Amino acid sequence: MLVSELETPALIVDLDVMDRNLSRMADYCRGHQLLLRPHTKTHKIPELARRQIDSGATGITVAKLGEAEVMLNGGITDILIAYPIVGTQKAKRLAKLAEQADLTVSLDSEEAARAISEAVSQQGVKVGVLAELDVGFSRCGVSNEVELLMLARKITSLPGLEFKGLMFFPGHFGVVPEERAAMRVQVNELLDRVLDLFARDGVPLAIVSGGSTPAAYEGDLFHGVNEVRPGTYIFNDRNTVGVSAATLDDCALWVVVTVVSTSVPGRAVIDGGSKTFSSDRYQAGDGNGFGLVKEDRAAEIERLSEEHGHLNIQRSERKYRVGDRLSVIPNHVCPTVNLHDEIYGVRGERVETVWRVEGRGKVR
Amino acid sequence: MLVSELETPALIVDLDVMDRNLSRMADYCRGHQLLLRPHTKTHKIPELARRQIDSGATGITVAKLGEAEVMLNGGITDILIAYPIVGTQKAKRLAKLAEQADLTVSLDSEEAARAISEAVSQQGVKVGVLAELDVGFSRCGVSNEVELLMLARKITSLPGLEFKGLMFFPGHFGVVPEERAAMRVQVNELLDRVLDLFARDGVPLAIVSGGSTPAAYEGDLFHGVNEVRPGTYIFNDRNTVGVSAATLDDCALWVVVTVVSTSVPGRAVIDGGSKTFSSDRYQAGDGNGFGLVKEDRAAEIERLSEEHGHLNIQRSERKYRVGDRLSVIPNHVCPTVNLHDEIYGVRGERVETVWRVEGRGKVR
Repeated sequence: MLVSELETPALIVDLDVMDRNLSRMADYCRGHQLLLRPHTKTHKIPELARRQIDSGATGITVAKLGEAEVMLNGGITDILIAYPIVGTQKAKRLAKLAEQADLTVSLDSEEAARAISEAVSQQGVKVGVLAELDVGFSRCGVSNEVELLMLARKITSLPGLEFKGLMFFPGHFGVVPEERAAMRVQVNELLDRVLDLFARDGVPLAIVSGGSTPAAYEGDLFHGVNEVRPGTYIFNDRNTVGVSAATLDDCALWVVVTVVSTSVPGRAVIDGGSKTFSSDRYQAGDGNGFGLVKEDRAAEIERLSEEHGHLNIQRSERKYRVGDRLSVIPNHVCPTVNLHDEIYGVRGERVETVWRVEGRGKVR
Repeated sequence: MLVSELETPALIVDLDVMDRNLSRMADYCRGHQLLLRPHTKTHKIPELARRQIDSGATGITVAKLGEAEVMLNGGITDILIAYPIVGTQKAKRLAKLAEQADLTVSLDSEEAARAISEAVSQQGVKVGVLAELDVGFSRCGVSNEVELLMLARKITSLPGLEFKGLMFFPGHFGVVPEERAAMRVQVNELLDRVLDLFARDGVPLAIVSGGSTPAAYEGDLFHGVNEVRPGTYIFNDRNTVGVSAATLDDCALWVVVTVVSTSVPGRAVIDGGSKTFSSDRYQAGDGNGFGLVKEDRAAEIERLSEEHGHLNIQRSERKYRVGDRLSVIPNHVCPTVNLHDEIYGVRGERVETVWRVEGRGKVR
């Protein structure tokens, strides 16, 4: 089957570009002695997780128990759930999963630690735990070295939990490399205090897990970090390009859409809106636009209805006709993928494979 | 099963409130001699479409062929696809569907009309067609009465197509009733010109289909309109309340979430982010916030990560603890529903039913 024969909207992955993205990150991590634990929230497809492991990843990261279940069914056994598992029901599911997988969770509260300890002890299994440190994003994580040590001691004292180290997420890191460098100075001062206190107290940190995609190739610059968890790098997107972590040629995924209306002058409407792309904004530049039209950089996706993309084509030389097909790189590929049941893997014009997005919608 | 026993995040519909919403809209339409053709994109559940028909709707509206297929499988046979069906593959699917259903489509181009005519003629079936008029939203639709008449004549001349009338979508209508009234004056002037020209030309307009949820209870104020297509009214959401089309007590759907972290002072993190709610912004007021916490109006959902909701609780008196459960009314219920596989129908604390969101993800 050819790409031109696919009904639209359709998610396309250029397999050559994806393979190159996988190799590049694996090479970077090998070169800097960093463990690579990709966040599979970007694709949610067990086969792609296996490819990441085959190309050098030590294991994977997920955000939800349901995603861990899907990945385990797909044969992946080394899984970090980088999310606080809270509540007895979820703790029980976690304990069941831990019978078959090498599981680690991150958390930042005694409440979460206790419930998990209870459930895994009852099940007679163990899970690894990373204590989460807030390095400035103000989402999850304790905020200083003393609290972190207290949390680590608590985790160590609870049955069924194996304290493995710490995790942080520099989600506040800016789009401009210079800004990121300045922020990194502050994060490294905090990390230095943590490393120092833990060393003095004799609490080993087997894992110091950091990084995100904007800072993906800067993981080696954080003090003590020995593991990174990039997600978006497998596909990249308009935002990754916007923060200079990739070029447009590194964008492996795009959405093939069809022009369905040209009746309003200066406009063209495509058959993908917020239910195809998500409403996520552009994080760089002027923040405008809901994706990038590969065939026409002068067209701006100015607005999304649920099923309509509103193209402003006033500055374009291109003649738009109903039935034209276009390729759109989304702003943020992770929520885009999460809206679709399948993705087509292509080489050139040929569709080589179809993956089911098996982890899609696993909100629990 | 009780609501308190559901794992989170979970979509909850209060059946009493939903029933009241259905009755209210049906009564309004009956009172104003308007045909009610609800847009089922809001729920995507055949059983709820049947309830809408049982409570007085003449048929339903969908946006995608895939949604029409799901609804037809669910026993609904009078379907308007309020979206231009473009391309031979889609036209063929439409023609196949038309063998079993009473189908109407909207369109604004000769290209779309020709392809559909060809496919349905080949299949030996007929579909109804509404010509779309742009009343100011600048999305789809021709922009004046002369173009509309030419399109209507073209549709009438093509085999297999039955010209039924016109459709418009006042998507640009503001949040303030006074603004809407001013806009309606302009729309009515355009509608008057259309009605006049079509009457003089002897082209009957059996259907004049208008309205949207913000203008839901104002459908009778548009000249010539005899059908409305509200969607959100079945559940309502923060935006519908923001435009005064409903009150908070009319919001039938909310998301039960759990607090998973309170370690950052002044913050609480819930286990629902953009993959639970969508990133759709608040359309009214200052535009801030990604939902409304029913238990604590002083809490603001300031930001969404994919799986984390960031609550700013600095102005709140409430004591937040890990494990607390909260109820969040989403900004925009339609994309929220589209992210989930099931919805729980409840009365009080009791879960009475579980619906699969069968039309979810039917992007084609």
